[in-house]
Amino acid sequence: MDKEINLLQEIDTPAIIVDINIVKENIHKYQRYCDDIGIKLRPHIKTHKIPALAKLQIEAGAVGITAQKISEAEAIISEGGINDILITYNIIGEQKLKALRNLANKVKTSVVADSSFCIEGLSKTFEGAKEALPVLVECDTGANRCGVISPQEACDLAELINRSPGLIFSGLMTYPPTSQAQKINSFLTNAKKLIEAKNIAVNTVSIGGSPDMWKVKDIPVATEYRIGTYIFNDRSLVENKICSVKKVAMTVLATVVSTPTKNRAIIDAGSKVLTSDLFGMNDHGSIVNFPELRITQLTEEHGTIVSEQNTNLEIGQKIEIIPNHACVVTNMLNEVNLITEEKKIKKVKVIARGKVW
Amino acid sequence: MDKEINLLQEIDTPAIIVDINIVKENIHKYQRYCDDIGIKLRPHIKTHKIPALAKLQIEAGAVGITAQKISEAEAIISEGGINDILITYNIIGEQKLKALRNLANKVKTSVVADSSFCIEGLSKTFEGAKEALPVLVECDTGANRCGVISPQEACDLAELINRSPGLIFSGLMTYPPTSQAQKINSFLTNAKKLIEAKNIAVNTVSIGGSPDMWKVKDIPVATEYRIGTYIFNDRSLVENKICSVKKVAMTVLATVVSTPTKNRAIIDAGSKVLTSDLFGMNDHGSIVNFPELRITQLTEEHGTIVSEQNTNLEIGQKIEIIPNHACVVTNMLNEVNLITEEKKIKKVKVIARGKVW
Repeated sequence: MDKEINLLQEIDTPAIIVDINIVKENIHKYQRYCDDIGIKLRPHIKTHKIPALAKLQIEAGAVGITAQKISEAEAIISEGGINDILITYNIIGEQKLKALRNLANKVKTSVVADSSFCIEGLSKTFEGAKEALPVLVECDTGANRCGVISPQEACDLAELINRSPGLIFSGLMTYPPTSQAQKINSFLTNAKKLIEAKNIAVNTVSIGGSPDMWKVKDIPVATEYRIGTYIFNDRSLVENKICSVKKVAMTVLATVVSTPTKNRAIIDAGSKVLTSDLFGMNDHGSIVNFPELRITQLTEEHGTIVSEQNTNLEIGQKIEIIPNHACVVTNMLNEVNLITEEKKIKKVKVIARGKVW
Repeated sequence: MDKEINLLQEIDTPAIIVDINIVKENIHKYQRYCDDIGIKLRPHIKTHKIPALAKLQIEAGAVGITAQKISEAEAIISEGGINDILITYNIIGEQKLKALRNLANKVKTSVVADSSFCIEGLSKTFEGAKEALPVLVECDTGANRCGVISPQEACDLAELINRSPGLIFSGLMTYPPTSQAQKINSFLTNAKKLIEAKNIAVNTVSIGGSPDMWKVKDIPVATEYRIGTYIFNDRSLVENKICSVKKVAMTVLATVVSTPTKNRAIIDAGSKVLTSDLFGMNDHGSIVNFPELRITQLTEEHGTIVSEQNTNLEIGQKIEIIPNHACVVTNMLNEVNLITEEKKIKKVKVIARGKVW
């Protein structure tokens, strides 16, 4: 991205920079991959949180989008063009159930559930609705987060969903631990068989995760892939050799504000932009064109860069950082600076930022 | 805070809860402490980011406020009542210098600098201004962030400031490493002596930091204390025995959304509310009334609670979490839920959220 450096000089820092050319390339490349192997793609909008980018994903061939929360979904559909949303979250509590019903009145909405408590709430809310709410059973295939922990439980909940007024069982969903393809496939295949033995169709088996994006074939039971980070990529994916640095579409632009010693420089991007997410790595991002420099510490408004040699950075100099984790960075600021195809800077609002309800 | 639990049931989660009674108690207690030992208090508004709370700090006797960034200062003065701001940041670049001059036209503003580059920019901007801009020299007394690294450099910059049109040297400032009182005092005392030997007055010596808030006397050279977290307190201060749990004014309210096993429960507060800040601790906050439960993992929208025994948590149950680090949590959501003195919930906008410029 260094060819854009003159363009970037205009931007006040710290700032998020998104290159639309790379975004489009990333979207189309993975869509083609999914098309080729015959799996549906349902991108997770949590990475970008921007309606215009969700629409690019749909236009490229995605079957719909994934959102984690109802408020996030409401924000992402606010500009139109999105008609199919899967909320991969247990919807609990009256306020959220009411909001879910409102959402389902606007666009085709499906959700997940991993307990009878959750299913009962959904059923009470959708009983009498014009269309039944599609519900997938979330399965814990090794991530130790939400999800039923056995195929038999998945089958029991599938039956409960189909017995519950206002609901229809529509498949299985898992939040995938990385690199356990065999375990995931076996859990989901067993659950599918048990459910089908009850004469219930399992239309969708939804898996996902950027780290395993090129290994979808290892989980043949899957019919749908959910993926977020691939649109921007980030340092975690570069370090894990899932993508090259050239395919990173989002960076953080920062200014050097202090060079107290020759080995240390301080930038104006701290944890309020880059976040403290480490994702198991050392340091807080990598600096484009300066591989020998390390961002070793963040406080809220300062990043500390150190080098064993002279940093050679000068006060006022702007640098681009590839953040450890793209999705959390777009949650910190209200807007991103999009580099358009015409090489103009366009400020775009991160409409679904902070939508945690 | 458990007595408020019925009140909290109304609040959709995840949410930030602030108890105004405890806030006021914290503000007044520390103001009295500073008054008693004869040091000025200049609270850092980065913890709360809310004009009404800044005004409470001023009304209690603070000499002014501290902000890290100009945009943060602009936000905090937007409701009036704040007339004295120290920006503890090197202001670099034309856009920010212009904004600084605008800010200084509205309220009494002072800044820091740790380089001739920074001082030259300030001078160009304030040359010809009606009033000279007060500039403190930032000293690195051990934190290894910004700041000159020797008393002689501090003296050289003090002289440069006073030679520079539009500027006036007004003192020394340090971002303090904790528990190095003697080193801090010695650096600042030496710098002060060198500067005074040049017939330049050192009106202010500004130190700070919540972890050392009760040890101010160990740095007798200081005239002013900057402090942020004390208004809310957080888990890091509780664990370091700086305050008791009863003095924690801010918590995160979350709902249990899944109980996949008896040892594990999942809540709807993840890193998009609690952040990944660990501050050297294990786990991601402590749960009020459930000391045996641990929040061992966060993803963006999920927190994982584990217990060696049965968690005894039920889906739909609301719990209160004391976050590791208060300041970063108020940066995640657009509003907090204030529990008023009349025990009502009042939604208050976090006006300076995300103001990183």
